[in-house]
Amino acid sequence: MTQEKEKEKKVEPSKTVRVALGERSYSIHLGTGTLSSAGIAIAKVVKGKRAVVVTDKNVGRRYAKTLQDALDEAGFTTHRITVPAGDATKNLDQMQLLYDKMLRFGADRSTVVVALGGGMVGDLAGFLAASFLRGVPFIQVPTTVLSMVDASIGGKVGVNLPQGKNLVGAFHQPKLVWIDTATLKSLPERERAAGLAEVVKAGAIWDAEFFEMLEKTIDRALLLESDVLLPLLARSCAIKAEVVARDERESNLRMLLNFGHTMAHPVETLNKYEGILHGEAVAMGMVYAARRSEELELAPAGTASRIEKLLQRIDLPTELPKFPRKAYLDALGVDKKKLDAHIQFVVLREIGQAETRALSPEEIYPKS
Amino acid sequence: MTQEKEKEKKVEPSKTVRVALGERSYSIHLGTGTLSSAGIAIAKVVKGKRAVVVTDKNVGRRYAKTLQDALDEAGFTTHRITVPAGDATKNLDQMQLLYDKMLRFGADRSTVVVALGGGMVGDLAGFLAASFLRGVPFIQVPTTVLSMVDASIGGKVGVNLPQGKNLVGAFHQPKLVWIDTATLKSLPERERAAGLAEVVKAGAIWDAEFFEMLEKTIDRALLLESDVLLPLLARSCAIKAEVVARDERESNLRMLLNFGHTMAHPVETLNKYEGILHGEAVAMGMVYAARRSEELELAPAGTASRIEKLLQRIDLPTELPKFPRKAYLDALGVDKKKLDAHIQFVVLREIGQAETRALSPEEIYPKS
Repeated sequence: MTQEKEKEKKVEPSKTVRVALGERSYSIHLGTGTLSSAGIAIAKVVKGKRAVVVTDKNVGRRYAKTLQDALDEAGFTTHRITVPAGDATKNLDQMQLLYDKMLRFGADRSTVVVALGGGMVGDLAGFLAASFLRGVPFIQVPTTVLSMVDASIGGKVGVNLPQGKNLVGAFHQPKLVWIDTATLKSLPERERAAGLAEVVKAGAIWDAEFFEMLEKTIDRALLLESDVLLPLLARSCAIKAEVVARDERESNLRMLLNFGHTMAHPVETLNKYEGILHGEAVAMGMVYAARRSEELELAPAGTASRIEKLLQRIDLPTELPKFPRKAYLDALGVDKKKLDAHIQFVVLREIGQAETRALSPEEIYPKS
Repeated sequence: MTQEKEKEKKVEPSKTVRVALGERSYSIHLGTGTLSSAGIAIAKVVKGKRAVVVTDKNVGRRYAKTLQDALDEAGFTTHRITVPAGDATKNLDQMQLLYDKMLRFGADRSTVVVALGGGMVGDLAGFLAASFLRGVPFIQVPTTVLSMVDASIGGKVGVNLPQGKNLVGAFHQPKLVWIDTATLKSLPERERAAGLAEVVKAGAIWDAEFFEMLEKTIDRALLLESDVLLPLLARSCAIKAEVVARDERESNLRMLLNFGHTMAHPVETLNKYEGILHGEAVAMGMVYAARRSEELELAPAGTASRIEKLLQRIDLPTELPKFPRKAYLDALGVDKKKLDAHIQFVVLREIGQAETRALSPEEIYPKS
């Protein structure tokens, strides 16, 4: 160890959220500037001494060395796999390449896979960890707002097929989620805002008080002010953790997390996933679903506009793009969550309270 | 329903073994001539109304129609996917074709995948069920001795990579295992004998009394005499079910099921999986492991020869083929169960009692 390294101050996480899943329980640690402390924390939750960091080109360039040094210091033999950035290679061909690399590294059942990046990296590395030798330990180090509050909790991992997104995958819980908000500095503001859409969702479906807190502080969270951002992220993680803990396999309660997503998916598909971020589509979808909730006389008037105003404050779009009704209906028909002809559509009863309704595509998107 | 069908007598299973895995618990139903009763039993354990039968060419030709008719009668919309027989296409390319077909059938999360065939079909269909839409219900209808007592219990599913067997996969428990021993009539005697090697293993590692029962009846089991065969299969399933129930994810106890397998894998690899059946390699491996147990002064003298004599009665090979020692050591070095340099080698303390020892390849295969 060099003298510089000895002097280097390690920053420990300031908040911890526990995801209670019996023997698959794990912790989410949140802090700012904590990346170089990750190694020791990871060593505490896994038995093996070999780690494979999966990252993409952009994130890897900035943060992989710090993480690998931390793992090395904690006694791991560390390898790195860099995949192309973007969703285009989140597929089975890429998986084949990842399996090959794991074997070349001499990975065995005790080798830990560490995802360093956004949701795409987490999904890909997570499915690698879920399926290689029928499952190896998995760690998430998310570097986007969206993956911090959403993708890194709940164990959903997988890849796309040419026919659609995330059609192949698994539920594979991480052993640990390590959130360092300092990694958000390099994230464009537009992506930060899109990630906050899922934070708004957490408040809208589950926690009216948290929603009010967002109404006070969301602008400052967007600017990454730590005293505001860390509590928001932690609370959002805690809500998702609570929902997932009660319904790990998405049979019921967990469907509430799809609030805004039933219409977001068609929007993304019809845009061919270009020019629109997932959180932006979710923002539109949430306002749409809240309006439908009002029209169906399930939610009080004004519910949708409160969500709309909050989202607009961080410049998120709130109106569905103008595609023909038939295009929306067709896109809804291939929703992978459909059970026979009906879709479990998430409606609001009020801010902070959601439920599902089995609706046909025609009921979700009626003639205006 | 035609008059013939109304008259057709349905045969119900005569034995049931429960696999206790909490919310993933399921039953194994054993009987003779029960295939046409499978549909109603399957309908009872799944919610959906769409079933995809995955089978291979040989098995499908003989039994798929009976099974599909049974499913249709029970109210399912039924599809069939026929894959080539043999292990050569148990790979990711085949998985891609299976995903495509599932989507073309309009399969959703409630669609049940039914594996009709031997271990290869079960592994492939099981990984399809584990990974399609992150998991759909799965049923096993095994048609070989080996898959009845081994592959269909425990939830291990997966595919091969060019670098080795079963390197990619999952643990995905079936909702039901339906064993009709009438399907064994079309199985060559050599394959039946090889399957019985795993039955012998169950006795050797777990149940001395059962081992004695085998010493009395194994010849008649090979000839498929139902009064002998059904109790043997049921007891063998029950032993594996008990081991799996205590250790679903193969962290410890479940390793005992690898008895005979540590040397069987190198034998299969060195033979390039040609000219030798899995059960035959296991037979050799068990006698080898029992001899090593005696040499290490863990098991009393005569343990190995008792196993050897039993296996020889059904014409199973008991001597390892003559490959150079270095070839065996190299093959052991890529054993996917290795934890760092050591392999968890299963030894016997006596007939009916096994344990694991962490040994190096050199200790497993010492200079003679």
